[in-house]
Amino acid sequence: MIPPDHPRYRSLLVRERLAWFADQGVVSPEGLAAHGRGEAFDYLLGERTTGSALLAERTAAAMLLAARHPVISVNGNTAALAAREIHDLQRATRAVVEVNLFHRSPERIQKVTRLLEGHGVDVLDGDEERLIPVSHDREWSHRDGAAAADAILVPLEDGDRAEALVSMGKKVIAIDLNPLSRTARAATLTIVDEVTRAIPEITRAAGDLTAGECEKLISRVDNSYFLHAALDEIARRLSHALD
Amino acid sequence: MIPPDHPRYRSLLVRERLAWFADQGVVSPEGLAAHGRGEAFDYLLGERTTGSALLAERTAAAMLLAARHPVISVNGNTAALAAREIHDLQRATRAVVEVNLFHRSPERIQKVTRLLEGHGVDVLDGDEERLIPVSHDREWSHRDGAAAADAILVPLEDGDRAEALVSMGKKVIAIDLNPLSRTARAATLTIVDEVTRAIPEITRAAGDLTAGECEKLISRVDNSYFLHAALDEIARRLSHALD
Repeated sequence: MIPPDHPRYRSLLVRERLAWFADQGVVSPEGLAAHGRGEAFDYLLGERTTGSALLAERTAAAMLLAARHPVISVNGNTAALAAREIHDLQRATRAVVEVNLFHRSPERIQKVTRLLEGHGVDVLDGDEERLIPVSHDREWSHRDGAAAADAILVPLEDGDRAEALVSMGKKVIAIDLNPLSRTARAATLTIVDEVTRAIPEITRAAGDLTAGECEKLISRVDNSYFLHAALDEIARRLSHALD
Repeated sequence: MIPPDHPRYRSLLVRERLAWFADQGVVSPEGLAAHGRGEAFDYLLGERTTGSALLAERTAAAMLLAARHPVISVNGNTAALAAREIHDLQRATRAVVEVNLFHRSPERIQKVTRLLEGHGVDVLDGDEERLIPVSHDREWSHRDGAAAADAILVPLEDGDRAEALVSMGKKVIAIDLNPLSRTARAATLTIVDEVTRAIPEITRAAGDLTAGECEKLISRVDNSYFLHAALDEIARRLSHALD
């Protein structure tokens, strides 16, 4: 349907993939729109991992390795785009993986869980309770999931829940292409990068870092630096965009 | 499902509306993602009509009024978001309205057509031919539609087709929130504004402009100015975004 000579072929293919997962009930329709928002920011960043994003990814690895109870919170889009990458990161960090959906239904939770398990991810199951103080369905967590985390990786997070998790005293690591989003501002550390590029870099760093390097990276976490670096990169690219 | 106290309530409601139209088969899943891209740029522009966009809207009205055979090309997203606004613009400019879909099927064409007709739009029907030189389904046009236009308004256009229409010698008026898109660069005139804000402004200007004002606006069309003005606005807002 999409001709290979179309200049935005790759981006359109990823959209088709998400559209297929939407058809399967893994991705919500609103998740497709959220993906498009991310596409726009990725486009402005040059669709590559910047130097500051790579540093954020190494810092994220250090925070997950140093945590007592690291958790990875996965939604529909993340599962559709990066189930295999989540598996590799879980192996490298021994993190608990929990499914958490904005547009929640028992069927969607089951579908996202099955997709992850199909890629070898060990997904937390059992009863959930309303443990996160937000006014929508993302309040649900297992006792051993987000509620118990000291460090939590939230790819593609909602701003409300990011703020709630921070207010609970957790170290929140966001992956968000929009450096101005509430999630990006609220998080302890924001990785401004595309999720399928970001997660493998965290995994790679988790296999590389020494204990001393981890300590140094953690002692220097400065979210404001990472947000400004991303904005500067966008502004720099915009100023040359029509040359 | 979305709580009214959510800070992005309005944006999420519009997404829900599009998701509903996707469920009805009017909007394609890829259209939802494309909407998200637009949302991100609108956010960067402050979700309002800038001064330069308003000038572009008045210029678009002048071009449609001066045309011998003005056409408005409507896709699924435009119909879902702005069917009533298209009706008003058609009345003000006596333009031909034609449905043209990237993800084309006879059923979707019928659904989009019915939605427009339900809002009083007079939609071109009858046989279509492969009249626009692009390598995908947007090549189809009626003899009296895009193929015959001297000026054509293309809200939310694909870059390929925008370039093809320009290469056919037509005056192409794009509505595109991304000032760097191929559509925005290829068009004769680009309105960098959200479609439900842009179309009523074109309609209003079409009712206001004198023949002398139209002539003056048309003589000064400079697409590069409008693209630079939008980029400058984004850069200006980014530089203060984290203050």
